[in-house]
Amino acid sequence: MKILLPDTTDLDPDLPEGWEAVTIDARAEIPTEHHDAQVLVVWGASRRHLASAVENLHDLRLVQSLAAGVDGILEAGFADDVQIATGAGLHSLTVSEHTLGLLLSILRRLPEARDAQERHEWSDELGGMQPLNPEGRMTSLVGARVLIWGFGQIGQTLAPVLAALGAEVRGAARSAGERAGFEVLADDDVLKALPEVDILIDILPGGEATRGMIDAEVLAALPDHAVLINVGRGTTVDQQALREALEGGTLGAAALDVTDPEPLPAEDPLWDAPRLLITPHAAGGRPVGADERIRENLLALEGDGAIVQLADR
Amino acid sequence: MKILLPDTTDLDPDLPEGWEAVTIDARAEIPTEHHDAQVLVVWGASRRHLASAVENLHDLRLVQSLAAGVDGILEAGFADDVQIATGAGLHSLTVSEHTLGLLLSILRRLPEARDAQERHEWSDELGGMQPLNPEGRMTSLVGARVLIWGFGQIGQTLAPVLAALGAEVRGAARSAGERAGFEVLADDDVLKALPEVDILIDILPGGEATRGMIDAEVLAALPDHAVLINVGRGTTVDQQALREALEGGTLGAAALDVTDPEPLPAEDPLWDAPRLLITPHAAGGRPVGADERIRENLLALEGDGAIVQLADR
Repeated sequence: MKILLPDTTDLDPDLPEGWEAVTIDARAEIPTEHHDAQVLVVWGASRRHLASAVENLHDLRLVQSLAAGVDGILEAGFADDVQIATGAGLHSLTVSEHTLGLLLSILRRLPEARDAQERHEWSDELGGMQPLNPEGRMTSLVGARVLIWGFGQIGQTLAPVLAALGAEVRGAARSAGERAGFEVLADDDVLKALPEVDILIDILPGGEATRGMIDAEVLAALPDHAVLINVGRGTTVDQQALREALEGGTLGAAALDVTDPEPLPAEDPLWDAPRLLITPHAAGGRPVGADERIRENLLALEGDGAIVQLADR
Repeated sequence: MKILLPDTTDLDPDLPEGWEAVTIDARAEIPTEHHDAQVLVVWGASRRHLASAVENLHDLRLVQSLAAGVDGILEAGFADDVQIATGAGLHSLTVSEHTLGLLLSILRRLPEARDAQERHEWSDELGGMQPLNPEGRMTSLVGARVLIWGFGQIGQTLAPVLAALGAEVRGAARSAGERAGFEVLADDDVLKALPEVDILIDILPGGEATRGMIDAEVLAALPDHAVLINVGRGTTVDQQALREALEGGTLGAAALDVTDPEPLPAEDPLWDAPRLLITPHAAGGRPVGADERIRENLLALEGDGAIVQLADR
């Protein structure tokens, strides 16, 4: 049995007995000699690649994505009996790490420190004795009230790290409850909770249901000192409202790793919004644990357990 | 019984029965009417303040520092029967947070991202699909081999956070063993371990014993891609050797929150060393949990338990 691996990332799965792995060009059509493959691993695939798989891989049983979102694969039109597994969880560590980097860079005023460094200035304002929680400004996670909106695998990886650094962390998701030891609000209850939120972390998925969820009303409900971080999808934030909140001083600071559209056009005024950091969709992009996930799902295909992160179709 | 609190930070300890707190100017001599104090809390005190306490507080039983280091208090010459308690542990969260901010800013290339943002450039090099552990460069904590040199309260707070983000963490201290669940090397074994260290975090204390411990030999033993962070004391790093390693490309990157001397003079060439971040002793400076520590040690003075973090004299 054959599994096709993409050439877009380094993979070396420990295959179960009887499987053969072939690495192919993820941007090109599937070569004829590999049309007998039963499993296709997808990472950075072109549309042409996916269309070729739909058309030619008649023995295909599983499409294993290494990305958390599988919209493109679902839209490609695979036959109903082809199972599709998402790469949810493979980006939890890297996205948590980037989120924390953006957040701490803002809290610890690292851009200002770099400016002072360029001036060869040892800034007494940035260093030395400081108030722990100064009025009107977030400068530490200690005692900070954090809400993670979109509380899936990434949020549940990030939450205990923030808590270990002294933050009070809650999640928000479609339904209320408790997950991974953290209180989770229902989406519908977020708006009234926002006045008590110092740091809002957006890890919402894309799609029509979440389009513009972080809008002018949400931003206005946050305290003026609040910090917004978006590592979910660019479409979830009303970028004009965000820019106006930053310019008007009704939001403390923000960082976006995702924008709408991507790439953000050079002429977009968002680039120059005050107290805003933009990184170019750099949080994830490095699946972690893909080899183990591939092996686990090959074993599941052979009847040993359930497919991990099977997508709803 | 009277306890004197400094005016340099907000304090509101829940005092045991019979104690009265008075807030005084930490830069000035102790007012005559407070020469009957039994406890002095020290934070940002001037030499004159400490000298006045030594000379005039004849009923003094405890000097409670809120700083981790108490060199200045020890040198002030308090009578032998005056106990001195350090503020060790009150800075673990804040220094861990700053350390992580500096480290993630380097790994996630946030200064480069900010430069790209100023150019309105969505950099394909910084974002999108990335190798997890590219040759010759540290870009993630996932799989990174971290050594925390100086493995006290701060190191033991930081270590589990780094581990939760995917790093392999060890400590180094005077004696080998295991602390807080982490392997700890003896100082004498660090040099031969360094070729296997990707990230070296210096939280060494000051003093003659640690002067220049991170020297040219240590820097040369690290891999060329290694990252050095110093949040301990500026004197522990040979700054000329550090600058030469950065300029020569034999060290990946570095961040210093402490320098020797402080402030770093404007003409020091260190300011312009490549791939170096400098923050002006900004990691701590905000004692966390001081009120609780003060209460705990007042209770200890009354015979209820041992003084927490009593300094050796």
